[in-house]
Amino acid sequence: MSIYEQDLGRCPANHVPLSPLSLLRRTAAVYPHKTATVYGEQQRTWGELAGRVAAFADQLTQLGIRRDDTVAVLAPNTPAALEMAFAVPAAGAVLNMINTRLDPAAIAFILDHGETAVFLVDAEFVDTAQAALASASVKPLVITIADPVAPAARIGDLDYDTLIARGNADAPLQLPDDEWQAIALNYTSGTTGNPKGVVTHHRGAYLNALGNGLEWNLPKHPVYLWTLPMFHCNGWCFPWTLAAYAGVNVCIRTVDAPLILDNLDRWRVSHLSGAPIVLNMLTTEAERRGTALPHTVKMTTAGAAPPAAVLARAAAIGMDVTHVYGLTEVYGPAAICAWHDEWDALPEAERATCRARQGVNYAVLEELSVRDPDTLAPVPRDGTTIGEIMFRGNVVMKGYLKNPAATQAAFAGGHFHSGDLAVWHEDGYVEIRDRSKDIIISGGENISSIEVEGTLYRHPAVGTAAVVAAPHERWGETPVAFVELAAGRHATEAEIIAHCRAGLAHFKCPTRVIFGDIPKTSTGKIQKFELRRRLTEKAN
Amino acid sequence: MSIYEQDLGRCPANHVPLSPLSLLRRTAAVYPHKTATVYGEQQRTWGELAGRVAAFADQLTQLGIRRDDTVAVLAPNTPAALEMAFAVPAAGAVLNMINTRLDPAAIAFILDHGETAVFLVDAEFVDTAQAALASASVKPLVITIADPVAPAARIGDLDYDTLIARGNADAPLQLPDDEWQAIALNYTSGTTGNPKGVVTHHRGAYLNALGNGLEWNLPKHPVYLWTLPMFHCNGWCFPWTLAAYAGVNVCIRTVDAPLILDNLDRWRVSHLSGAPIVLNMLTTEAERRGTALPHTVKMTTAGAAPPAAVLARAAAIGMDVTHVYGLTEVYGPAAICAWHDEWDALPEAERATCRARQGVNYAVLEELSVRDPDTLAPVPRDGTTIGEIMFRGNVVMKGYLKNPAATQAAFAGGHFHSGDLAVWHEDGYVEIRDRSKDIIISGGENISSIEVEGTLYRHPAVGTAAVVAAPHERWGETPVAFVELAAGRHATEAEIIAHCRAGLAHFKCPTRVIFGDIPKTSTGKIQKFELRRRLTEKAN
Repeated sequence: MSIYEQDLGRCPANHVPLSPLSLLRRTAAVYPHKTATVYGEQQRTWGELAGRVAAFADQLTQLGIRRDDTVAVLAPNTPAALEMAFAVPAAGAVLNMINTRLDPAAIAFILDHGETAVFLVDAEFVDTAQAALASASVKPLVITIADPVAPAARIGDLDYDTLIARGNADAPLQLPDDEWQAIALNYTSGTTGNPKGVVTHHRGAYLNALGNGLEWNLPKHPVYLWTLPMFHCNGWCFPWTLAAYAGVNVCIRTVDAPLILDNLDRWRVSHLSGAPIVLNMLTTEAERRGTALPHTVKMTTAGAAPPAAVLARAAAIGMDVTHVYGLTEVYGPAAICAWHDEWDALPEAERATCRARQGVNYAVLEELSVRDPDTLAPVPRDGTTIGEIMFRGNVVMKGYLKNPAATQAAFAGGHFHSGDLAVWHEDGYVEIRDRSKDIIISGGENISSIEVEGTLYRHPAVGTAAVVAAPHERWGETPVAFVELAAGRHATEAEIIAHCRAGLAHFKCPTRVIFGDIPKTSTGKIQKFELRRRLTEKAN
Repeated sequence: MSIYEQDLGRCPANHVPLSPLSLLRRTAAVYPHKTATVYGEQQRTWGELAGRVAAFADQLTQLGIRRDDTVAVLAPNTPAALEMAFAVPAAGAVLNMINTRLDPAAIAFILDHGETAVFLVDAEFVDTAQAALASASVKPLVITIADPVAPAARIGDLDYDTLIARGNADAPLQLPDDEWQAIALNYTSGTTGNPKGVVTHHRGAYLNALGNGLEWNLPKHPVYLWTLPMFHCNGWCFPWTLAAYAGVNVCIRTVDAPLILDNLDRWRVSHLSGAPIVLNMLTTEAERRGTALPHTVKMTTAGAAPPAAVLARAAAIGMDVTHVYGLTEVYGPAAICAWHDEWDALPEAERATCRARQGVNYAVLEELSVRDPDTLAPVPRDGTTIGEIMFRGNVVMKGYLKNPAATQAAFAGGHFHSGDLAVWHEDGYVEIRDRSKDIIISGGENISSIEVEGTLYRHPAVGTAAVVAAPHERWGETPVAFVELAAGRHATEAEIIAHCRAGLAHFKCPTRVIFGDIPKTSTGKIQKFELRRRLTEKAN
């Protein structure tokens, strides 16, 4: 045996499982009087937050919750929701944040599939929860999170703040025995079939919490506005990042432009995250008020590449936008369009092109690559060959809950298969061309709906654009464009098509343009499945 | 079995051993053209650095080096020394950076104890290495690192740059199979008996690399000047931190005030580290030149609390000083005097008092505490009860090489015993009162030599002060002060003693004051063992 292996093993002095709970414990000890949460007129310090977390974890234990029990939460971005990111793992349990926009049937499926033991429900969502529980098989303990701003509705016999008042705020936070222990369960929004339950662990949550800060150049004590739903990959691990950086969590119940702007001003928010739609919303509101932001606000955006026009307007009001990329399976963002100072000197359009790329791996992710989905061979770094984006490293999920077939398929060949189709540029940056299911195959040629949308966005009358495949007798599929016109602008179908033909190979151009509102999720992702449904309905 | 443990194990897609090599690989891929090292007129990019590292690791493998072989290095802070922080672990081997101030006998001991397989020697240290090898039992492969600035001396048949030219710069960096694998061996300076070999691992090196950045609020692309010897705990893990942050390593062969100032200006250095003596040296030189620094320079200092007067002068020329604390056994600094904004409003003397405390655990260290060394009970947080500083967490060494008794003693009760005696303040900050061996016990009372030195430093004529125990017939021990007068100042023994009696309990006051030069290590640590030797010699 090597001399470096003799009598040099792990022991309690030199090995502790990595867990974001350690980050909370440390910040509560060092900065107990610093503000942790702001919510309207209510403020709490890191000392108070840690006390509430300890008290609720204690009560979960008193209620019989044990390691690997599932605790589901249906709540908007309130301090209580934030507390869950710590209190549930501190009781050894697994946090399942549920998308508040889901219908009761989908929620019932999730409650059953996750074998939910406790279900926390914000008062606003009592009706939805009631309906979900009525059709679910599980009978979890139900706890209402009352809120002066929400209706006075109640569900179940237990109340969150009552339990906290009863709990031991000095109980030590229970760290996991093993950093591979599950910390969270998040269901993918799966547009077809039932959603899959993504299981993540303490090790990955810890590393991505630090990774967010490292990539975003986060200073100590940031003031972070919660425009990103905490039910999206646990707020991209930001509850834990904010604990590591002893920051302020400014909580808001709704993503509403005036509310965002008011909070930005009032609390001197330094950082926020969200889909490009949030950026657009915020920029539009600032423009409406006729003011630039009183200070630079940094934003990470993901879910779609931010359109160039939106980026330019955002810069004009003082926003500094970073494009990140990820999926629930990789803890939220695990890739970043890492900026190069040289790019500052480029013309605006080229800067936007640079910024629209999904980029490179986070330092805490081992590898981001574009590969042939079958052979796993990396595609050439030529900016044109399309392959599938793959992830490998410590911020990749444990797998899908009770779905070994899906887990094995996702991890085939030692990489996580994202389902996103992309090109790999010479400088190692990846750029998404499409989701696998969003690619349009017309006459045997692949058409990137994103490329067509990019062209549409360059037309001044286009506010929002989405391109999907319509069945076509001769070509198999053909691209159809949905367009929301920009305020006060007008264009005809023929004009839009002509604009596309001027800038795109003709086979890629939409054969139809449908004007009207485009359906989006709560975070601004365009619901293409809904557009496809509309096309099918029209066809029938 | 829990549903969260079924079919959700580790696999190549979702688990990679933590290693700082991943940080190099990522920065070389994302920022291949950014400057990695600057050394006089020579500059190399991260792409070039990674290529050289790969080539040398390849050559080490060709030379028969295998996992857990020891590669020793005797070199000042050159780019080659920096490359070793990556190339040696990339070959699976263990890096042993040797203090260049050691005498040949001490180096021979280290070479033998570490069972050195390869010994790299900077041309400046060929004579020392020759002498060490003459008395050592091991016969390592010896490689000379030639340098245009160093003498043209050679040792052995191999030459570093020739090997690199021969190596495969595209060879993939070999990551460890296990993050617990040893990455480095560092010998403590042990003032009594033989030095102990501290073994650290890839996991801890990775975490402390990130920890340095997090605690110091490091921005991306810092410009870091190498005033801290790389042989001190592998430069406190900063080679790996700089890789994570894609920074610039400004290398210099000697810690020389004009050279430091010239490099600060020329490269717009943003960050550096070192003992308070380096801070003092730098400040004095800037004052001599009659200029403040052209931009703010941030410095972490450790090894001794920075004296208030030095801090005030440093602030005046534009230095922003952070006090950190650690030992070789905890990868360098693992504690920090984390600053509170409120302290900015305090009077200068109080700010200095705040900053002189060793502080709190790094976020990546689980726990820093002050405990009774026997019972391990935490001491009260009263700022007066003295206990021993203890560390627990992932940035604590594997243990001492081939010394299970010392390892067990160091880890007794599940904490690493630092040997530093301290008080614990109400706010959780620790403050060192003394090394165990530096405490003076007079008439049964403990006297903190640091407290007495603090008083001495408040006398305007005192430039440097050190207090050690002298044997005393009646009291057992008595404090004796060694004083280096400040330039152009004068004081008598009686005046100094009177000054102490005005500010200290009488039993703590020095009974003798000896004026003259005070011996220091290469990094400015006062060599108290040498002062004790002088006292003993005088007594005999």
